[in-house]
Amino acid sequence: MPEYKAPLRDIGFVVNEVLEAEKVFQTLPGYEEATTDLMDAIAAEGAKFCEEVLQPLNQVGDEEGCTWSEEGVTTPTGFKEAYRQYVENGWASLAADTEYGGQGMPNLLGIVNTEMVGSANWAWGMYPGLSHGAVKTIEEHGTPEQKEQYLTKLISGEWTGTMCLTESHCGSDLGLLRTKAEPNADGSYAITGQKIFISAGEHDMTDNIVHIVLARLPDAPEGTKGISLFIVPKVNVNEDGSLGDRNGVHCASIEHKMGIHGNATAVLNFDAAKGYLIGPENRGLNCMFTFMNTARVGTAAQGLSHMEQSFQGALVYAKDRLAMRSLTGPKNADGPADPIIVHPDVRKMLLTQKAFAEGSRAFLFYLAMLGDIVDKGTEEEAKNADDLMSLLTPIAKAFMTETGFEAANHGVQIFGGHGFISEWGMEQIVRDCRISMLYEGTTGIQALDLIGRKILGSGGKLLLNFTNMIDELCQANNDEADKPFTDVLNAKKDEWLGLSMQIGEAAMSNPDEAGSASVDYLMYSGYITLAYFWAKMAVIARQKIAEADGDTSFYEAKLMTAQFYFERLLPRTESLKTTMLAGADNLMQMPEEMFAF
Amino acid sequence: MPEYKAPLRDIGFVVNEVLEAEKVFQTLPGYEEATTDLMDAIAAEGAKFCEEVLQPLNQVGDEEGCTWSEEGVTTPTGFKEAYRQYVENGWASLAADTEYGGQGMPNLLGIVNTEMVGSANWAWGMYPGLSHGAVKTIEEHGTPEQKEQYLTKLISGEWTGTMCLTESHCGSDLGLLRTKAEPNADGSYAITGQKIFISAGEHDMTDNIVHIVLARLPDAPEGTKGISLFIVPKVNVNEDGSLGDRNGVHCASIEHKMGIHGNATAVLNFDAAKGYLIGPENRGLNCMFTFMNTARVGTAAQGLSHMEQSFQGALVYAKDRLAMRSLTGPKNADGPADPIIVHPDVRKMLLTQKAFAEGSRAFLFYLAMLGDIVDKGTEEEAKNADDLMSLLTPIAKAFMTETGFEAANHGVQIFGGHGFISEWGMEQIVRDCRISMLYEGTTGIQALDLIGRKILGSGGKLLLNFTNMIDELCQANNDEADKPFTDVLNAKKDEWLGLSMQIGEAAMSNPDEAGSASVDYLMYSGYITLAYFWAKMAVIARQKIAEADGDTSFYEAKLMTAQFYFERLLPRTESLKTTMLAGADNLMQMPEEMFAF
Repeated sequence: MPEYKAPLRDIGFVVNEVLEAEKVFQTLPGYEEATTDLMDAIAAEGAKFCEEVLQPLNQVGDEEGCTWSEEGVTTPTGFKEAYRQYVENGWASLAADTEYGGQGMPNLLGIVNTEMVGSANWAWGMYPGLSHGAVKTIEEHGTPEQKEQYLTKLISGEWTGTMCLTESHCGSDLGLLRTKAEPNADGSYAITGQKIFISAGEHDMTDNIVHIVLARLPDAPEGTKGISLFIVPKVNVNEDGSLGDRNGVHCASIEHKMGIHGNATAVLNFDAAKGYLIGPENRGLNCMFTFMNTARVGTAAQGLSHMEQSFQGALVYAKDRLAMRSLTGPKNADGPADPIIVHPDVRKMLLTQKAFAEGSRAFLFYLAMLGDIVDKGTEEEAKNADDLMSLLTPIAKAFMTETGFEAANHGVQIFGGHGFISEWGMEQIVRDCRISMLYEGTTGIQALDLIGRKILGSGGKLLLNFTNMIDELCQANNDEADKPFTDVLNAKKDEWLGLSMQIGEAAMSNPDEAGSASVDYLMYSGYITLAYFWAKMAVIARQKIAEADGDTSFYEAKLMTAQFYFERLLPRTESLKTTMLAGADNLMQMPEEMFAF
Repeated sequence: MPEYKAPLRDIGFVVNEVLEAEKVFQTLPGYEEATTDLMDAIAAEGAKFCEEVLQPLNQVGDEEGCTWSEEGVTTPTGFKEAYRQYVENGWASLAADTEYGGQGMPNLLGIVNTEMVGSANWAWGMYPGLSHGAVKTIEEHGTPEQKEQYLTKLISGEWTGTMCLTESHCGSDLGLLRTKAEPNADGSYAITGQKIFISAGEHDMTDNIVHIVLARLPDAPEGTKGISLFIVPKVNVNEDGSLGDRNGVHCASIEHKMGIHGNATAVLNFDAAKGYLIGPENRGLNCMFTFMNTARVGTAAQGLSHMEQSFQGALVYAKDRLAMRSLTGPKNADGPADPIIVHPDVRKMLLTQKAFAEGSRAFLFYLAMLGDIVDKGTEEEAKNADDLMSLLTPIAKAFMTETGFEAANHGVQIFGGHGFISEWGMEQIVRDCRISMLYEGTTGIQALDLIGRKILGSGGKLLLNFTNMIDELCQANNDEADKPFTDVLNAKKDEWLGLSMQIGEAAMSNPDEAGSASVDYLMYSGYITLAYFWAKMAVIARQKIAEADGDTSFYEAKLMTAQFYFERLLPRTESLKTTMLAGADNLMQMPEEMFAF
């Protein structure tokens, strides 16, 4: 099993040098305490917990999985104890509101922690991870009483939360859902139906689980406009906050699945379970978007976590494993063969992992900081940040999980046949990672969100916000050394704008043109977005090298990785450009019955 | 679990209409009996066995896996019985030499069977599959006595064979292997050492297993020139052919792995086991190449098998699953939503699977028929066919497994969250498929073989053999309707030749330039090779449509799929072209210690 060492140097680089977070937080009321020193200290402490407590449980979780019985779900050996420690150390409440007992640290620090927890043990991390969305939803849409009753314990980690959307016949298309909510005399609702794929939906870590459930009121309109949102606790909560009797929600079974075995994916039966309306009637889906956006950024983090985890495992192996000689003569003449890191293709795979991981880290952390600005900035700042988040969230979710899966597979490939063997832990990363392209909206759903709602829906305005940032970066950094990055990026940015316009026009006469271009367009957008962060990092690295009198190798590696990204990964946009313009005809013309004979 | 229906119509199209196999076999002494009627009948009979017997055991094999004990390995429920039936029905001996009891059918028919068996149950198929290589090796390099003693029972399927190359410290770099062979007084050798990753290395299906083992004679030169090849039966064989005492080879354990759970991946301990030299001393690796080439084509077949298997599962689901409305208005107005096959991106994934599967089928079957020409053609024909096989085998192995893995993942993606759940059987395909890019030489190894040995090693001659075929096809089919295929292909062919030259020149001054380009070059070559087969199929489909008076929808679908391939998949060569020319610098410049901080 690969060991995990949190990449604190690189995390610090992104937080302090790329995002200059302290400077930003000084301008955000409530976050002034988040200084570089404090953030570094918290990250280092979190790193220790992830390395020492969570990572050793990662393979255990995969092998044992969760066990279901009538009484509930037993999590793998050590999971419960690790959770207790996590809560005791205050990690659960790190980035939550102080009003309900949170520590009020920025979202950015929360995502730093999410990355590290996820690299150490993604399946475990989903238990506390799901709570964040529940907290956000209740914070935004709950009544003062609901906040009082649920938020404090969700934030402390005494309870966890879930998100109950999917039913067996509907996932992406929530308009089809059937779970019913019928008014009780006491103002609560009786929730009846079955939900599936509920991550962390049942477990033995806490005394209560707070389910956030989508259901239909009687006589609600059909489709997405007839869905309301409810809080349904596993155990009813008395008015004094103590636990009452068991509510009518039970875990009927858990799924056998490809990966994330340590996390229980529950089928939940709601049998006239007591639920409490949250937000306005029939507006549940709108309220749920808060939850879903948080979850999408969290899933983007999963991509990053697996990139880093797989890269670390593969790098150790590539330095250690001896096979064949370098094409340019022995590099380990005294040994029987050279370490495989001398071979160009092994390096290509390692650098692909590294470039995706470090680029995604900058992208993801930036996104998290936008969330902080939405929460604490001025109205105008918040609006701008929210617009950027709207554009970038589907890109981050789909692009980081697709490239995360690629990176995880490179890790297996570098190990050769050993990569396929469970003991080494590399194939688990592929299996755990595979879900990330599916849940919280598949890649296809993100792509439709991006091109339909975000690009065309805003008449290109949301995109311009970001391309203007690219423009600024390129304008401000155009001397000879920066040009290999900024000139290329600038041209790509113009191409991106042009393509968006072109697809938009085609879509006006035939909406299938947008759908046909969507996934290629999203991936293309992802490569350019990452190029922006790589160009930015390259510019900073160059400045640091110029300023530094001491060790500059970190920054030199950054520049080399940026070069690799621009020369080896960004060119993937060329094919994507051609295929996104290939038109709907080659996809739509074939009649259903002619797909197979 | 997806049902499997053998794609007999498409298999027949490739065998009879694309390859015109009957016509070819009429010219090959010994294969005259292989008429269209007979081949169709055999394929149909094989299809039944795969659909009815093997496919129902596929998920069982995955869930149960193999069980190891001191006494040996127990295969999953039903595997043994299915094997007995397979042997009784004569499938094991189908394409083997009549001199030792084989049915003397062409290799092509063998690979048709391999595809179907593999789609139905790849893990099971590896038990008989590994025997083919052992048979080939003994046929080519064995003494008459060895053939007498081992071939008949391997061919009948009474015994199975294996290929014992890998040791824990060496896989790709066999020069490092340590297993020793010391001469016994009776002319045999005492084999001592440990081999790992031996597929089908131990099982309960047959009374004996014939291991083909690489080992070193005393005082053999170091490296690859000191390796010899031995036959090591699990149970010693008496002179009369009956089984004697147990030989000193034992299965120490089996691996826990990502997929192909139904096949035992054995660690074999050789403890002065009796072995028999096969072929000349110290030339074992050369002899083993026979085996390896067979195995590489067999692994290419694995890619095809999983493409087809995943496509079939996904297609049924895409027609059945209702979610959202078509962007151009309801297509299933009476239902609550449209089947997801109306959505462009779902179609893109399905067509990608379909185009890879059908293109690969033509490519693979062609390769198998080349093998038949090598075996039975005139000296000149055999030489030409062998040259083409040399070039195309590494392309087929790496390209079909890489795209097979992509196709398998599309299958999961089309299922959404359900794709991740074991019950549906789609994620098993991804896990089973993942090994194909690793064993029998990783993608990286194939790429070095292609660019180093085959392209540069032949001074481009091997490539010209194939590009001349492309040229011929394009010259002969250049009217308006064919041009969208043949014009594009022709230009790509010129580009391919130019790139090969360019990389060759760069490699002369720096061998790392070849290594740096290798995998992109291989994938690029794969897309063009498949374009050749798609262009050829399109030309034939057009002719058939022009000729036919009846149902032409099969050929229309072929044309539409060809169009899809040329417009949506072939353009991937554009990015590959850029990145293969990106130079070694961005890969080689980073010092080992700067990959992580």
